[in-house]
Order: sequence, then structure tokens, then C-alpha cells
Amino acid sequence: MTEQPQNDEARHAAKMAKKKAARDKIMATKSGEKGLIIVHTGPGKGKSSSGFGMILRCIAHEMPCAVVQFIKGAWQTGERTLIEANFSDLCQFHAMGEGFTWETQDKARDIEMAQKGWEKAKELIRDPNIRFVLLDEINIAMRYDYIDVEEVVKFLQEEKPEMTHVCLTGRNAKEPLIEAADLVTEMTLVKHPFRSGIKGQMGVEF
Amino acid sequence: MTEQPQNDEARHAAKMAKKKAARDKIMATKSGEKGLIIVHTGPGKGKSSSGFGMILRCIAHEMPCAVVQFIKGAWQTGERTLIEANFSDLCQFHAMGEGFTWETQDKARDIEMAQKGWEKAKELIRDPNIRFVLLDEINIAMRYDYIDVEEVVKFLQEEKPEMTHVCLTGRNAKEPLIEAADLVTEMTLVKHPFRSGIKGQMGVEF
Repeated sequence: MTEQPQNDEARHAAKMAKKKAARDKIMATKSGEKGLIIVHTGPGKGKSSSGFGMILRCIAHEMPCAVVQFIKGAWQTGERTLIEANFSDLCQFHAMGEGFTWETQDKARDIEMAQKGWEKAKELIRDPNIRFVLLDEINIAMRYDYIDVEEVVKFLQEEKPEMTHVCLTGRNAKEPLIEAADLVTEMTLVKHPFRSGIKGQMGVEF
Repeated sequence: MTEQPQNDEARHAAKMAKKKAARDKIMATKSGEKGLIIVHTGPGKGKSSSGFGMILRCIAHEMPCAVVQFIKGAWQTGERTLIEANFSDLCQFHAMGEGFTWETQDKARDIEMAQKGWEKAKELIRDPNIRFVLLDEINIAMRYDYIDVEEVVKFLQEEKPEMTHVCLTGRNAKEPLIEAADLVTEMTLVKHPFRSGIKGQMGVEF
């Protein structure tokens, strides 16, 4: 009477052993390491927060890293507070933007700030000690042509040190950047609480 | 001769002022606050890391929070190291899983660990002091029916304190959970470096 569950367990173990063997075989071919160009785009949540999740991993592994925030610079976000207060030795934080373009209403000023952010980004990416650079919301600045996407792609391809990871976030990532990237994730919005009158909340959105 | 750019700038400012007015009007209707059921699913990257990005925000705002890791418990991940070493007063970390099912090859043991994780999750969610609970990879445990999705949904709807946020991550989130959630993001894989022989790397994947 107890044979049935034992058979089930044996079948499960055999199936999983087979799956593991197949997976191990695949993983054995994935031996390369290189600095990645990572893009988080799309209308869904999680583009910036997963960028900061990776920054957290870098800090944990004591990999020097840096953040340039292109749009949300006027806000004292939680991630900025935490990093500046605890990990400024491992992670440089540069908040360059002054808000979304409909907040500033000053195109010349927006362009100037975006360009300043891009200059800082280049300096950080070139720095051989820095292993991971997060360019938060830079895709928005490229979308409005405040920064030229072709220039960004050319720089990443020609001047980024081989082992440095660069993560570029923001919706509407342009095609040349997606082409050049190694790892692209599109965050798709399935359901959003704004639709039912809930505002952005501490911990979740900022 | 300088009139043209001034006109451009004036047009931009007027357009953005109009956009801001429209946006402010919409945002004024978003005054509610409530604890959200958040789901990160899909095959793309960023499901767990954006969960940890939100944990980082909570810690920054000194909101007590907690993590239950259902699958990756056997690994000493970067996020776990960092949180345990620096923020154990604000964030409880419980690593309950022992690896993916094809690593353990023991279904009974996997179910036992998943159920233990779920018991711990319920305890943390019920705790009125905890404001945000991340259930990392729990969707995988529900997908294999190691935890009953209907039970999870019922618990969240009936016993979750009103202001507590719960974030459930992992691919293949089941429909009843998506139905019950307030905020659902599907991470879509556009491009992945595994395809070109690059393995998971420190800082990026763990």
C-alpha cells in the first residue's frame, strides 16, 4: 500500500535528475564573463528598483559602483539616502536631474542637466576601479534627444572597459541602444493601483 | 534673429505647463494609501532584484520589513549578506529553500521547506509592526503546488493588515494571484547574454 507514493517519489527524483543533467550540460557552456550593457525599459514597474537591487548586490560583494540619476535628482529618494548614509565608500551617487520635463518646463535647462549627467557618466564608466554603473532614467533623456543615443552607443562600444557593467533604465529605450545591449528586459504593466486611485507610496515607489 | 529659439522655448514651456496641469489634476485624484499585493512575474530579469530594491527603500525610510526566500536559501546571495550584516534590526531575512527542484531532486523535502516558508510568511505578514514583506520566488512554489495558491490568496485577502505591502516574485504566477493583486509587472525577456555563452555574474545575478 505504501508502494504508490514511493514510486511517485522515485519518478520525481528521476525526472529531476534528468532535468539537472540537461541543465548542468547547458550551464557548462556558459563560462564566459564580460561587462554587460543592461537595459531596463517598458511601462511597467521595477526598472529603477531592479537597478538598485543590482547596486545592492555589488555593495554586498564589495564591488565599487556608481549611480547617476538623470531625472529624479530633485527628490531625496530612499535609495539615495541609504547609499549616501551607509555605503558612500563603495558607491558614488550623483543626482543630476531636476525632475521630469513637465515639472521643470525649461528645455534648455533640462538639456544642460542631461549633458552634465552624461559627462559624469562617461567619467565613471572610464574609471577602471568602478565595476558597475547605473544610469537611472537615462533612456528618458535619450528619448527627448537631450542626449544623443548614437553617441551613447558608440561610447559604450568603444570606451567602456571590458569587465564593467552598465545598466541604463527608463521607458522608451531607443532601438540602437537595444541593438547594442547584452541583456534587455521590458517591464510590462499588467495592473497598476493608480487606476483605482492609489498614490505612489513610500517603500514601493520611492 | 534670436526670436526663433525663444519661440521654441516658449512653445516648449507652454506645452509642458499644459502637461503638468493635466498630470497634477490626475495626481490629485490619487490620494489613497493602502497596503498593496504586488506581483513580479515573467521570464525576464529583475523580478527578485526589484523586490530587493523596494526592501532597500523601506530600510531607507526605516520601515520594518522582512524577506522570505523560498528557493535560493542554499545560496549566500549578496542581498542576504548585505541585509544581515547591516540592517538586521529593520529587516528580518529568512532563507527557507534549498535550491531549485532539479537541484534537490527530493519532492517531499521541497514541499516541507515550502510549507515551512509559508508558515513563516504568514507570521511575518500578521505582525503589525512589519510594513513590507517580500516573498521571493514563492510563485515557483505555488506553480508546483508545493503551496496552494488559493490558500495564499485567501490569507492575503482576509488576514493581511490593511497597510502592509506584500510582494510575491517568481515566474509563472498563477491566475488567482494575479486577479487578487493590486500591482502586477511582467518582466519580459528581450535579450539575454546566456544565449551568447555568458554565465550569471556577481552583482548582476546574485
